[in-house]
Amino acid sequence: MSENAETVTAAMLVIGDEILSGRTQDTNFAYIAKFLGALGIDLCEGRIVPDVENEIVAAVNALRGRYTYVFTSGGIGPTHDDITADSIAKAFGVGISHHPEAMAMLDARYKPGEFNEMRQRMARIPHTASLIRNSVSTAPGFQIGNVFVMAGVPMVFQAMLEDVAPRLKRGAQVVSATISARVAEGRIAAALARIQTAHRTVAIGSYPFYREDGFGVQLVVRGRDPEAVETVARALEAAVRAEGAEPQRL
Amino acid sequence: MSENAETVTAAMLVIGDEILSGRTQDTNFAYIAKFLGALGIDLCEGRIVPDVENEIVAAVNALRGRYTYVFTSGGIGPTHDDITADSIAKAFGVGISHHPEAMAMLDARYKPGEFNEMRQRMARIPHTASLIRNSVSTAPGFQIGNVFVMAGVPMVFQAMLEDVAPRLKRGAQVVSATISARVAEGRIAAALARIQTAHRTVAIGSYPFYREDGFGVQLVVRGRDPEAVETVARALEAAVRAEGAEPQRL
Repeated sequence: MSENAETVTAAMLVIGDEILSGRTQDTNFAYIAKFLGALGIDLCEGRIVPDVENEIVAAVNALRGRYTYVFTSGGIGPTHDDITADSIAKAFGVGISHHPEAMAMLDARYKPGEFNEMRQRMARIPHTASLIRNSVSTAPGFQIGNVFVMAGVPMVFQAMLEDVAPRLKRGAQVVSATISARVAEGRIAAALARIQTAHRTVAIGSYPFYREDGFGVQLVVRGRDPEAVETVARALEAAVRAEGAEPQRL
Repeated sequence: MSENAETVTAAMLVIGDEILSGRTQDTNFAYIAKFLGALGIDLCEGRIVPDVENEIVAAVNALRGRYTYVFTSGGIGPTHDDITADSIAKAFGVGISHHPEAMAMLDARYKPGEFNEMRQRMARIPHTASLIRNSVSTAPGFQIGNVFVMAGVPMVFQAMLEDVAPRLKRGAQVVSATISARVAEGRIAAALARIQTAHRTVAIGSYPFYREDGFGVQLVVRGRDPEAVETVARALEAAVRAEGAEPQRL
């Protein structure tokens, strides 16, 4: 952990009717959460909006002023319901047109005559934006200001993040310790509260579980000072033992 | 579809550090999306916020003025990081205290002497709220105004929705048809756009897939008029056949 590391924050905006209808279980949010975590970037907020221009514009503008970075998924394909690029251009108040480099990349991918007008929509990029490449689908995402616009298909989204990562400022990495215990959450809650109050530089999360073989709780300590995390993890283990259970480090 | 059915809208607010850290893959959002869909209620927006009072208050207040209903998950357990009930009370500007009925329910669940102070936190309910019962954990959620506050553990969340359903106004149900086709999205995109323009009462979504055995697209038609949905589904099937592929109804 470098001493001059600043806090780097992010929000994720999931765009798509298919998420709001329940047709598709989003997995990009959990993926980017871990991805950013490994870079020391705090994912602070998520939003899910439909394929509706006003909603996309409002969400992007609310988020981009508030966090270091905003990441979006969805709505950058060739079909009529892919309106993310135009919405982002509107949010930034810039024009949008066919990006020469994106046109060349996509043209090279298709057989002669197959790069039709609808496919060319995938090369529509807001002015001043830079491309985000991906090895899976060729069709690019783009970065404009602090906003990174990516595909919704998970393997394309993930490939795009590889191109994005080198562009991001990194923060001090968060380390965590997880302790599983076969003890009721309500029995150790008072100890958790005391330990949390005594150690303000870490966050203690408590997550009960109910499984066929019994119930218990997972205690998660997160923080940027590994020593503090370890100190608190040991205090939690002691609290579990005080209730007659054996803690397990995961 | 009744003719006087009004549009009923909803937003879902997922509360919890564990979702933002990527530790937990949220599944409540997709679950409630389908659940509300079956009641004819449109899920219009989602937000994900951390266990931070200001964030919860701001999100609840932004959403409850805008949609018929707001549903929340997470943060109603016994531990120090469970701050949802207090945050909701603040959002509504009401007091909060131990609810006699919730106290009685929980007291009956525990052995004598085990219903300790931290567990009693689960009976803290904002004034004017009504309880949401669940058969899984006993600990109640609550409804205040148009906001329904529920647990994060999926099986408890789902059980609470059963108690909530009878309280909800229902809208005209959305019907959908899904067509799978082994055709590139970009080849039928122009036809999709034409069909969408000609049928404004339905929404056509286009979702490409890439699998080991090949690629294709799933076309989803959604709307409240079953005849219109069927008409458009047939037009889409014709568009797929025009590209030399055989559509498949899912």
